[in-house]
Amino acid sequence: MDSAIGVFDSGVGGLTVVREIMRQLPSENVIYFGDTARVPYGSKSKDTVLKFSKQIVRFLMTKNVKAIVFACNTASALALEEMRQEIKVPVVGVVRPGARMAVEMTKTKSVGVIGTDATIKSGIYNEYIRQLDPNVTVVGKACPLFVPLVEENLLEDRITDDMVDRYLSELKPYNVDSLVLGCTHYPLLMNPIKRYMGDAVTLVNPAYETAKELKNILEKNQLLNQKLDTPAYEFYVSDGVDKFKAFADEVLPININSVNVVDIESY
Amino acid sequence: MDSAIGVFDSGVGGLTVVREIMRQLPSENVIYFGDTARVPYGSKSKDTVLKFSKQIVRFLMTKNVKAIVFACNTASALALEEMRQEIKVPVVGVVRPGARMAVEMTKTKSVGVIGTDATIKSGIYNEYIRQLDPNVTVVGKACPLFVPLVEENLLEDRITDDMVDRYLSELKPYNVDSLVLGCTHYPLLMNPIKRYMGDAVTLVNPAYETAKELKNILEKNQLLNQKLDTPAYEFYVSDGVDKFKAFADEVLPININSVNVVDIESY
Repeated sequence: MDSAIGVFDSGVGGLTVVREIMRQLPSENVIYFGDTARVPYGSKSKDTVLKFSKQIVRFLMTKNVKAIVFACNTASALALEEMRQEIKVPVVGVVRPGARMAVEMTKTKSVGVIGTDATIKSGIYNEYIRQLDPNVTVVGKACPLFVPLVEENLLEDRITDDMVDRYLSELKPYNVDSLVLGCTHYPLLMNPIKRYMGDAVTLVNPAYETAKELKNILEKNQLLNQKLDTPAYEFYVSDGVDKFKAFADEVLPININSVNVVDIESY
Repeated sequence: MDSAIGVFDSGVGGLTVVREIMRQLPSENVIYFGDTARVPYGSKSKDTVLKFSKQIVRFLMTKNVKAIVFACNTASALALEEMRQEIKVPVVGVVRPGARMAVEMTKTKSVGVIGTDATIKSGIYNEYIRQLDPNVTVVGKACPLFVPLVEENLLEDRITDDMVDRYLSELKPYNVDSLVLGCTHYPLLMNPIKRYMGDAVTLVNPAYETAKELKNILEKNQLLNQKLDTPAYEFYVSDGVDKFKAFADEVLPININSVNVVDIESY
């Protein structure tokens, strides 16, 4: 089935999920929406994130997508379960795949989760991880400055190292051996986080597992694209085409051709 | 005239302007709107900031405000002049008052301006300052991480000092003797900025001058409130009542009673 997969995020972070979909599902067409006019979501309330997510899903449905990926931890945490009933195509979030991988990786039964304020306060990683294994201890830590640091492209910077040190030092006493990067921006800070946590801690990037789950679901529903054309990638944003394109060209393995602006509030 | 003054900002920063209005115009009623669902504006495009500002002005007009204050540098820079014609009440922004004060203060004829990406890129401070005195050199520097640092309440923190050092070191070679705090969040970073720049540099907080200009305009238009009741302050936001209230109670000299949520996209 050659309809596209719809993927969305509050901004550019979800491109780390698109990157994985391109790798693992190289025949699939993808339509991405980044809500760059209203980014960030991680400091906002459940009502607002739910409202924004509903508008975006309505927009993606106008494109006849065959599946929808909530490529945003905050939207996955605050809006996905409440919206699942009303979405008529298969839906995948990033939280459940991330939780599953964390449980698979941990030997000490102590898992760390970092994310936005909203994601951490929702307690959703804790809930999913303990559904899978009630013996696992989950330590959550909100890292609200990581997103602006990524958006300012301070990926390798002394100030970023200082913030990593500040936030992650609170996890040290818990001897976590796997750490979920519970925000789609965070894989871009993989290097400073790895330096601080050391080699003994596995960093879990839910993007990889999310693409894998998406593949399983498409297979199970016989929705995989059988055509062998070059896949089409379409990008939509609510603001700032040039800034988005520059970021996408850094994150993705291809240069993207066109980015279109959508009046998302009208959906 | 006892109609309220309408004041808006992308979020909480404009409360530094409300604080000045409370001081200089203690008999005036104020209605404040903070666009906390879509904050920040400073990284967004002109089209988006214009659209958001129009929705907010339409909302404020439903409250029969007698004047409107754009208490946001980004909205003042990107939207105010284009909207001035269509607004039927007096309008005051923060940029022109800030520019005027900077020109009054400088002796070296070298003025620094710090603000969001959008404000600095607009070149509006440069334009206004050089209209007032073409001999003044204006050096602008965008400081995009200052807003998230303020929102995380890291007002006195080593990391904030490091960012101040990083951004402001670029101004040092220009020997500016006055520095405009061209974002309503920045007065909350007055202390670290003052420490870095030293006593020889005057920090210009446009909030003070904006309230003064507002007072002049109300007087000239015979719009001052003549009633001697205790003034009423109403606060509206697009998201996150509790977070806003906590912030307001720190910034304002009074504890605020109620904050209401507005569906701003519907205006």
